[in-house]
Parts: sequence; structure tokens; C-alpha cells
Amino acid sequence: MPASATPLRLGLAGLGTVGIGVVKIVQRHADLIAARAGRPVVITAVSARDRTKNRDADLSDYEWETDPVALARRADVDVFVEVMGGHEGPARDATEAAIAAGKDVVTANKALLAHHGQALAEAAEAAGRVIRFEAAVAGGIPVIKALTEGLAGNRMTRVMGVMNGTCNYILTRMQNAGLPYEVVFEEARQLGYLEADPNLDVGGIDAGHKLSLLAAIAFGTKVAFDHVELQGIGDVSIEDIQLADDMGYHIKLLGVAQMTGRGLEQRMTPCLVPAESPLGQLQGGTNMVVLEGDSVGQIVMRGPGAGEGPTASAVMADVIDLARGTRLSTFGQPAATLKEAVPARSATPAPYYLRMTLLDKPGALAKIATCIGEAGISIDQMRQLNQPGEADEKAVVLIVTHKAAPADIAHAMAGFAATGVLVGQPVAIRIEEV
Amino acid sequence: MPASATPLRLGLAGLGTVGIGVVKIVQRHADLIAARAGRPVVITAVSARDRTKNRDADLSDYEWETDPVALARRADVDVFVEVMGGHEGPARDATEAAIAAGKDVVTANKALLAHHGQALAEAAEAAGRVIRFEAAVAGGIPVIKALTEGLAGNRMTRVMGVMNGTCNYILTRMQNAGLPYEVVFEEARQLGYLEADPNLDVGGIDAGHKLSLLAAIAFGTKVAFDHVELQGIGDVSIEDIQLADDMGYHIKLLGVAQMTGRGLEQRMTPCLVPAESPLGQLQGGTNMVVLEGDSVGQIVMRGPGAGEGPTASAVMADVIDLARGTRLSTFGQPAATLKEAVPARSATPAPYYLRMTLLDKPGALAKIATCIGEAGISIDQMRQLNQPGEADEKAVVLIVTHKAAPADIAHAMAGFAATGVLVGQPVAIRIEEV
Repeated sequence: MPASATPLRLGLAGLGTVGIGVVKIVQRHADLIAARAGRPVVITAVSARDRTKNRDADLSDYEWETDPVALARRADVDVFVEVMGGHEGPARDATEAAIAAGKDVVTANKALLAHHGQALAEAAEAAGRVIRFEAAVAGGIPVIKALTEGLAGNRMTRVMGVMNGTCNYILTRMQNAGLPYEVVFEEARQLGYLEADPNLDVGGIDAGHKLSLLAAIAFGTKVAFDHVELQGIGDVSIEDIQLADDMGYHIKLLGVAQMTGRGLEQRMTPCLVPAESPLGQLQGGTNMVVLEGDSVGQIVMRGPGAGEGPTASAVMADVIDLARGTRLSTFGQPAATLKEAVPARSATPAPYYLRMTLLDKPGALAKIATCIGEAGISIDQMRQLNQPGEADEKAVVLIVTHKAAPADIAHAMAGFAATGVLVGQPVAIRIEEV
Repeated sequence: MPASATPLRLGLAGLGTVGIGVVKIVQRHADLIAARAGRPVVITAVSARDRTKNRDADLSDYEWETDPVALARRADVDVFVEVMGGHEGPARDATEAAIAAGKDVVTANKALLAHHGQALAEAAEAAGRVIRFEAAVAGGIPVIKALTEGLAGNRMTRVMGVMNGTCNYILTRMQNAGLPYEVVFEEARQLGYLEADPNLDVGGIDAGHKLSLLAAIAFGTKVAFDHVELQGIGDVSIEDIQLADDMGYHIKLLGVAQMTGRGLEQRMTPCLVPAESPLGQLQGGTNMVVLEGDSVGQIVMRGPGAGEGPTASAVMADVIDLARGTRLSTFGQPAATLKEAVPARSATPAPYYLRMTLLDKPGALAKIATCIGEAGISIDQMRQLNQPGEADEKAVVLIVTHKAAPADIAHAMAGFAATGVLVGQPVAIRIEEV
């Protein structure tokens, strides 16, 4: 609500999709933003590697810096907006330079914060500056704000999310078209949906970065990306997608963070979720975040997880907050008060989906059932599916367990291998209760 | 991020469900809130009509005021928290007194703001004070924050919501149990789900209040509750719920606000929405708000719309914002800059569901089809259902139109009446594209 008419001056580092989106909003909605922020928001200078590249925006009014560090230090910049990406090199150097030069920072860079968030937050707070990063998690969904501010009266109990649109596109396309992973992966590559290093997407790393940031805010702990239990979608088979669907489940790359008596569990792994649940119904590149708190219960937020407009919308929310004078600690409380996360190997019990192929001979199934029982696990559903034309040789068995600890599932899986009745490797996928 | 350890002192007016919820959070999470807010948040004084009532919280540390106006003026109160309700009388008097006495205000009172929001916002801004009202709309869902701050870089295009849990409970219960409105209304009354004046719920007034507040923020207009096109759920028949379901739709009391070339359309009416859409799947008392902006696209937020914990969570979000030093204009921009809303009678075309009973005689259907054609409306689907055992006397006809303007639908409906082939009144329900 400041009555000041002093413009807030942005230095914009990165003129890719998101950067150009920011330029467009600043230009198109100058009046709207000034009315809402109480002061104009202007871009004074920009930087990108290639000045000659043809871009879908008029940049002629802006000063140009080839070096983002020089941009970050300019006297005519109040807020350094970092939309270059990468957790080392220019993005890190320029962000550190901006803080050292007394600038506030708005960034879309989840990797940078997942790796260096604590150090950057401490540096910013020591300098009296602010780092905001709404665009770093779940694109256009204002989930950082919802968690840091909107639910600040809650002790958070669990945070979940489908936060990599490319993985969700691949999984839903596999299911809808009945295509194997390799085929859909190649489609996604040709559509330009994959990062230069596809493992950032399909390996769960990008989504893991995002989960680690949400966990830090939710539980008041230092970002602990290294402790996220990561499993990508490369091993998800079309067979499991279809069998799970028959049983009323969809497979999602789902992030879950929860604080337990043993410590902080963070996992980003393929999970089964009920097909009828909001998470189960999420199609294509859309993101969804589920926030659970002791007073509020469950809040579900759904929206576009990437793209020029949505990501720029999130960047501008942070910029307008700063223009309005809103100043928050990076992770919702002073960096010095964040506790070291005690990493806990995932131990929260859940039902599991198990699939295995057995030699179709007397006693095979009994041996498997014995392993499960000896691991202390009880069975909720079991189905035997005979392969067409191979009825006498082997049988596919599906089992849904009652709630079991991950360690007990691992114990049973080890037992299966020792029975000598398995053909190939068994599959175990957690069924997350959502 | 203020380093100050000066406590923020609340005066809490109203000790019903929400007020007690606020007391519990302040007491239970004192450390968590202090860490997040950078300073303690304390309650210094409370007020309620009946001091002797047994309440589920320890109030012994708080000063007691019988008169909320006296509470609002206390020197040891920084923020006046109003959770009494009612748009005149003590709630209004005390809120005005708080502003006049230089207090910030946090309120859960949608009726007060729907009726007096502009005047209160002007008074607050003239006094340099802030009014926040997250709890007034959609309970625990942080939607006021998402719209005012999280999407502030967008020109909003449409805002929608299912924001009265009681109505959604009644409609979903009718559908799931196959029960008529009157029976489920009585169930809801006995469960305590209805306001003392049930018309606030089932007449759509409460939800209309909320819609008018969202519209003011979204479109930068003065709150215009008087111009909300209101239609309650009392005329929704179990027959229409079941027939719509057969065609793939659910009936919801849906609020829609959109700015058009003719002005601001605001309607809170029963609508058909696709059964498979997030709105269509919303069950029971849960709320859902859909926010659409030019950059972000569509954001959907879902959560509990009422209850002690969720509503108190929203109140505390506002309180913690104030403790952190966040200060916003009531409706997201200075009250003096809000434009007078030009009310537009709903004219945005949509498909419509029409149901009517015809005398089953030659040419009856042709007459109806002629009326529809003469109104310039084209038909997407038509089904004739004969009543069991009455096949020769009358026939129920269902029509889904292509997109048509509401005025054209009204024209067709008037035409139907003149044909002389109708039995009883025809029904027309808008199908909102969501």
C-alpha cells in the first residue's frame, strides 16, 4: 500500500521463454501493476548470452549487459530477476553478486535453491535483502505463497505434489495410448518437452528439487535435497500402468514430504494413487500440490506447471510483492532458525502394489504368500493372471497389500528371490493414500 | 522479517466456533507462529455476548469486554479480529470503531464486507490501517491471498467457485441418495449445517457475498453484491439432478464473475458442469475456487470451506501477515482507485439444459423445436423420455442446446408457454464451461 510513486526497477537475467514472458507482462500490464503495487514496475536492464537472437518482444528500451553479474550490480536495479537456470556458474554467481550489492532477488531457479538455498538465504538475510521464488515450484500455481503465508498458522503434516509436467505427460500418454515408455519418451523429446539433460525430468531430479523447497518451508528445516529418495519414471512399465488402472489406480511421479518421529521423509517416486482422486485424475502437463496442515486439513492446488505465461505470472507475483513492500524470510522464517533436517529413510507404512511372474507349478503361489506372511505383511487383494497362450508355463500374480513398512516390503522382495519360483524381477510400487 | 520481539496483540471479538479455533491456534502454536512471524502473537482481550457459557478453551489469561466496541478501542489491542458475523449491529459498529481507533482489522465477515466493504476500505486507508479477510471466502482455502497477491500480474478473465458447503452437501446428497430437496434440507437442518436464516445458505446469499468480494479484487471494481444475479437451490429437483447425471453433468450452485464488454457479470446460480471436471467431482461440504488470468491460465483451489480449524487457519494467516509487516489495500489496490462496477445482466452465451413435459400428441415436439429455432438457438442433443405407464399421455423432453445467449433462452421459454403443448413449467439450467 505504499503511496510512493518511485518505480521498482528490475534487472532481468535470462531472455528465454520465462524472461520474455516477464517482459510481456511488464509492458502489457504497466497500469494494472502500478495500480495494484502502488508504484510502477519497470525493467531497466536485461542480460542474455546472445544479443542478436530474434526474440518475441521489444527490448529496445532496456540497457543490455552480456554478463549477468554486471547486471546484478547495476546501480539502477532494485530487484535482480534470475530466470537463466542452472545451479552453478552464471546463475549462482549473479545471484550472490546481487545480494552482495544489496539487491532483492526473484528467481525461478529450483536447482540453485535446492543446492544453495540455505547459504543464499543466510547471505540475503545478513544483507537485509529478500529472495523470493514462487516460479521455482509448480509454475503458475501460487503454492510457495500458500504454504509460506496462507497456511502459516498450521503445523504442516504432509506436503505432496505432481510437479514435473513432462513426467506426468509421459505417464498419462502411456496410459491413454497404451504405449511403452520408450516410445512416449521419444515423442516428448520431439515435442521439446524434455530438458537438455532428460534425466532432470524423467529421473525425478527437477521434481525432487521442488519437493525439497516445499519441505524446508513446511517443516522449518534447511533444504535437504541430497536426502530426497529419488526414483524416476524410466522403469514404469505400460503393463503396470494398465494393471494398476484395472484395479482402480493411476501411476504418478509423486513427491511426498512428511515429518515423522524418526525425522524428515522426502521421496519423489512413482506411486499408485486412486484413479478417482484429484491426483489420480491429473492429466498431461498440469501440476498439482497437496498441502496438509493440522488446522486446515487438506488444500489442493492445481494449475499449469510450466510455460511462458504461467511461469512469468509467478515471477511477477514476487515482483509485485516486493513493490508493495512485502518482505519475507526466504523459507518463511529466519534462515538461522531453520533446523538441520534429520533425514529418515522412508518408513511410513502404506499399502503396496506387487507384481511378479511365477513358474506355474504347484506350490509356487504358496511360497510367495509365505514370504509375505513372514515379512509381517497381510494381503488385501490377490489376482492371478495367466498369460494368453502360456497358461501352463507361467502366471502373472498381482498383490495389493495392507499397510506395510517399506523395510518389510524389501524383506518380502528379498524372500521372493530365494523361492526359485520367480520368472524375472518382481515389481513393488507404493500406494500413497491421498 | 521484522527482528522486533514486540508482540502483536489481538482483540478477539466472537467466541463461537471460529473464535475458539483462533484461541487454540494462538495457544498451541505460539512458538511456531513467533518463529514464522518474527515476533510473538498474543491475545490480550476477548468479547462475546455470554461470559458464562462453557467454551472449549482456556480464556482465563484474557481481559473480557462485554461490548465489542470497547474491545476494538482498547489501548492494548493492535489488531481487531472480528469473528462475530452479521452485516449490521455490533460487527459493523466494532469494525468501524477499530479503524477509527487506529487498529488493523482481520475479519471472517463476508456479509459485512459485501455490504460495506468499500466504505470500510476507504475508512481504513484514510486511517492508514489494513483490513484483511481471508477467512471470509472459502474457509481454509487461501484464495484471497492467491488472487490479491499470487496472481497480481494477471488481468483476470473469470473467477468461479462453489463456496457454500451446505448447498454442495445438499446437492451431492440428493444425487447420491436419490432424495428430494425437502428431505435433504431437513437432514441438513438437523445436522446443524444451516444458518439460523437458511436462506443465507440455500438462497445463495452467503455464496453471493463471497463472489462479490472475489469480483472486486479480480476486476478492480467496488464491491457490488446488489448486482449479483442470485438464484438458490430450492428449485433444483431430484429429477433434474438425475437426468443431468445421465447426460454426464452434475448440478452445482456455482458462482461466476467475469468482466465483459458490457460490464461486470456476477451470477450465483445452479449450473450444470461436466461430471468429470474438478468442479463436477466436488462432494459434500468441500469448496472449490477457479481463478483464470490472461498469463496464468486456470488455477483451481480446493479445500474445506468451513469449520473451526480451517476458518481459524485463514484468520491466522491474516494475523501472521500483519505480524510480519505485510500491508495490503483491502481489495488489492487503493479503495479510491476501484471503479464503479457497471452491472451487466448475464449475457455470455453458454449451452443450456432444457427439460419440459409435453402433451404426447402429433406436432408437439415440432412446435417446441420451432420456438427454439425462432430464438436463434441450435440444438446439440435431444432426448424424449416417456413416463412409465403414461406413454400415451405425456412425454418428458430433454434438450441440450449449443451456446445461446441467456436472453435467447428466455425468449424460447416464453415461446414454449404459448404453444399450448406444455404440461407444467419448463426448466432451463445453464451449462457452465469449466
